[in-house]
Amino acid sequence: MLNPAVTKKFIELPIPTIDDSLSDLERLKRELSRQFDIKNLTVDISILKNLAFVLRSAEWKITVTLFDAGNGFEVINVEAGNTSARNFGIAIDIGTTTVVVQLLDLNEGEVLAKSSNYNGQISCGEDVISRIIFAQKKDGLEKLHDLVISTINSLIKETAIKAEVEVGEITTVVAAGNTTMSHLFLGLNPKFIREAPYIPIASSLQLVKAKEIGIDLKENVYLTVLPSVASYVGGDITSGILGSGFFQTEKLSLFIDIGTNGEMVLGNSEWLVACSCSAGPAFEGGGIKHGMRATKGAIEQVRISCQTCEPMLLTIGQVRPKGICGSGLIDAAAELFLTGIINQKGKFNLDLDTPRVRTNENGAEYVLAFKDETQIDADIVLTEIDLDNLIRAKGAIYAGITILAESVGVKISDIEQIIIAGAFGNYIEIEKAVIIGLFPELEADKFNFIGNGSLMGARAVAFSKDLRETASLIADKMTYLELSVNPDFMDRYVSALFLPHTDLASFPGVMKMLESRT
Amino acid sequence: MLNPAVTKKFIELPIPTIDDSLSDLERLKRELSRQFDIKNLTVDISILKNLAFVLRSAEWKITVTLFDAGNGFEVINVEAGNTSARNFGIAIDIGTTTVVVQLLDLNEGEVLAKSSNYNGQISCGEDVISRIIFAQKKDGLEKLHDLVISTINSLIKETAIKAEVEVGEITTVVAAGNTTMSHLFLGLNPKFIREAPYIPIASSLQLVKAKEIGIDLKENVYLTVLPSVASYVGGDITSGILGSGFFQTEKLSLFIDIGTNGEMVLGNSEWLVACSCSAGPAFEGGGIKHGMRATKGAIEQVRISCQTCEPMLLTIGQVRPKGICGSGLIDAAAELFLTGIINQKGKFNLDLDTPRVRTNENGAEYVLAFKDETQIDADIVLTEIDLDNLIRAKGAIYAGITILAESVGVKISDIEQIIIAGAFGNYIEIEKAVIIGLFPELEADKFNFIGNGSLMGARAVAFSKDLRETASLIADKMTYLELSVNPDFMDRYVSALFLPHTDLASFPGVMKMLESRT
Repeated sequence: MLNPAVTKKFIELPIPTIDDSLSDLERLKRELSRQFDIKNLTVDISILKNLAFVLRSAEWKITVTLFDAGNGFEVINVEAGNTSARNFGIAIDIGTTTVVVQLLDLNEGEVLAKSSNYNGQISCGEDVISRIIFAQKKDGLEKLHDLVISTINSLIKETAIKAEVEVGEITTVVAAGNTTMSHLFLGLNPKFIREAPYIPIASSLQLVKAKEIGIDLKENVYLTVLPSVASYVGGDITSGILGSGFFQTEKLSLFIDIGTNGEMVLGNSEWLVACSCSAGPAFEGGGIKHGMRATKGAIEQVRISCQTCEPMLLTIGQVRPKGICGSGLIDAAAELFLTGIINQKGKFNLDLDTPRVRTNENGAEYVLAFKDETQIDADIVLTEIDLDNLIRAKGAIYAGITILAESVGVKISDIEQIIIAGAFGNYIEIEKAVIIGLFPELEADKFNFIGNGSLMGARAVAFSKDLRETASLIADKMTYLELSVNPDFMDRYVSALFLPHTDLASFPGVMKMLESRT
Repeated sequence: MLNPAVTKKFIELPIPTIDDSLSDLERLKRELSRQFDIKNLTVDISILKNLAFVLRSAEWKITVTLFDAGNGFEVINVEAGNTSARNFGIAIDIGTTTVVVQLLDLNEGEVLAKSSNYNGQISCGEDVISRIIFAQKKDGLEKLHDLVISTINSLIKETAIKAEVEVGEITTVVAAGNTTMSHLFLGLNPKFIREAPYIPIASSLQLVKAKEIGIDLKENVYLTVLPSVASYVGGDITSGILGSGFFQTEKLSLFIDIGTNGEMVLGNSEWLVACSCSAGPAFEGGGIKHGMRATKGAIEQVRISCQTCEPMLLTIGQVRPKGICGSGLIDAAAELFLTGIINQKGKFNLDLDTPRVRTNENGAEYVLAFKDETQIDADIVLTEIDLDNLIRAKGAIYAGITILAESVGVKISDIEQIIIAGAFGNYIEIEKAVIIGLFPELEADKFNFIGNGSLMGARAVAFSKDLRETASLIADKMTYLELSVNPDFMDRYVSALFLPHTDLASFPGVMKMLESRT
């Protein structure tokens, strides 16, 4: 299983004599072939420039770092002495919002350190569409490229310090991101991703020297960028399918990655269909009056008494609330619905005898926390507009799932497992997500949260070169359905704009709960 | 035969639709596979950066330039419209003294233009040893690299202008040079070439992007540097063996390339042995009192009357003489010897009744032209010291040939053809070269002058990718004999320090001439 594309070989070369006067490079090739059966070797000029001096200063005992490019090996470093015990890699998830970097021990198959930060591009727009628009401005593409590279370079340094590794000891980088992020990362203009018929420049697996695109690593270190499927199903999804083991299962499986965009994949080891829909930023706290990211002070759990309509809140860090994050939002909506404070359309029942539900010039709202209980100088409320945004987001995702199932002629109830990826997925309560109709109603044990699937796949590829090929196969095999031109999508979407859904028969458990309530 | 590694394909791509929404790169790959059966394609990021825009501005009709790297194809350029008729290459001979560039039409297999100039490195030393020493100074290596690159860049521009080709239309470069020149060209320090046991950094065929080492060509154009055999048998010799067809013959053949160093190869299509000796600069006019390169005003032919001892001179450009070049020197020495003006050891007969032979504080000399017949403010003479230098030079070469023959147990008289390479070879008179014992005495029709063998091989590789592999095979197959440690070399050398040789039996024709003279 542990079979990284980059390996280090300690090798002792016979000292040249008049009778064995091969060049340094030919001597190295001969010994790699003799001692390790490694053939088809290429070497960059930059390595050759130092080779003679390293060999002699090291008295012909060196460590060679080899990258297996698939059709042969490349010598990417030559060091004096035996450094083969230290061989490190980097896995990167390039999210539109957050970038996560892990430092890996390639010899041991272990994660040594992890760091994350906002993607520096956020200053140029919050979602991929605004980034694509920004990239069309003068120097916009260059700026976006520089920002994400700079974010990544800082994170690499940070993980190296944490793990007590020199940056120069890192021998490989594997990155996954959505198609737009992959473009900007590589310095490619994502312009045509946004224009029908939505064409990326490249979706296949990219192998490029990290330094060439500005990553501060030793010359000749290769970067692998995971392949995309289409403009809106990117390398992060391929990576998730790979990292989660989805591609190996015979079970009918559904993969859901919810961020600003929702991507869904249905299939098993034999076939894969995928689609993407714009969920909007609601699940990340965007477009919600008091929405925020899942950080300290965010309301992440809500319980509402059906007697008093009073809420019980749990915040991250157990401090006074500052706002509400995605999981809190789902929780709150589900509770408001179950308690009858909102109806199936997400509209407030204004006849209730509670100060928590009120109306003002912007419409109705529910007070989660009064001003004096919060960290901010205002009541924290959930408005009808917020609930509208949430329902549209979950409706789009559920409609996408419906279209996927219909496209291959299976029923949603046939799904045998649901894999939920995305940082968001860590905090979500399945039951609540089912109550609002974000996820199909299936037994709780059929849901698997994998966390950051994109990072998981990138790490897997760093640890095993065979998975590079597998990633390409996954991307090739996946059939992409473009929802924006799908004649049935709007219909399925409208049907999903209810809590949990117009088709209540698909949510028998939720129906039962509603019945027991009344 | 015409089968260049770089080809251009005009291709029309189907316009993308929602139902055929492959990325630009995958579309290109699919169509190259469908239309031309070209698979295993790689593409540099720099190409991807423009791909989307070129495709759309060209309305999906483009010309793709493909480089066959042996284990797959690389897209090295994408142009709008059909430019496939224009595909040009560059062949370079990087001589220690002179650099020659040819501009090639890769579609037609034709040479369109040729330019040459001194190697800009001459200012840093005349021979490879002085260049190696210079390279060890501070910034010396960088300076030498920059100088030869600058020479080459100027020559490429010059040939492009002559041939009415844009430099951006050049798609490949192939270069050959001796081992030290190849090192300096690639920016590699030749330090250990000069130190026993004389080890180059790399001798195998090098594939590198031309721009990476500073050659002013379009990004992604590949440079092929022909493989060397050893520190003193370089890519120029591999190239000559390839270009001359030596490697295909069954005849026992001798290849001689005479420059500042003399390199000799003995063998046939089955086996090859090679050696190198420092001939000194005599044949290029160096170390000779009135020596000069074969340019206008150089004495290139000499006849001397055995009655009067008066010379008849032919100069290049038929102007008054300025000095004497290599062929003139050989001619003069042979004539002086045949007329008895000098003896077998190259010493003057001072008893002759002629003002042409005289002595002064530096020893004896022969006046080729008196001051008033010359372009310079002095008599042009040939001194005993000049003759000593010449005899040492030819002695070293002949001794090398002897050692090669002995090493494989053949007699020099068994040699079936002699191939003479080097710019020098163009002007030499075989008979005269045999008289002084520079070449073995064989029938005149066994001698072939091929001119610049190094350039010939480089051109052949530009025209046919199969020959890249052949060049590597030749270099691998060639056995190198290091003369400096050969116990017999000194003995053979001392024997060759006579005109034509101590072993007169090997020169029966010369003996007959000498007999008929007396």
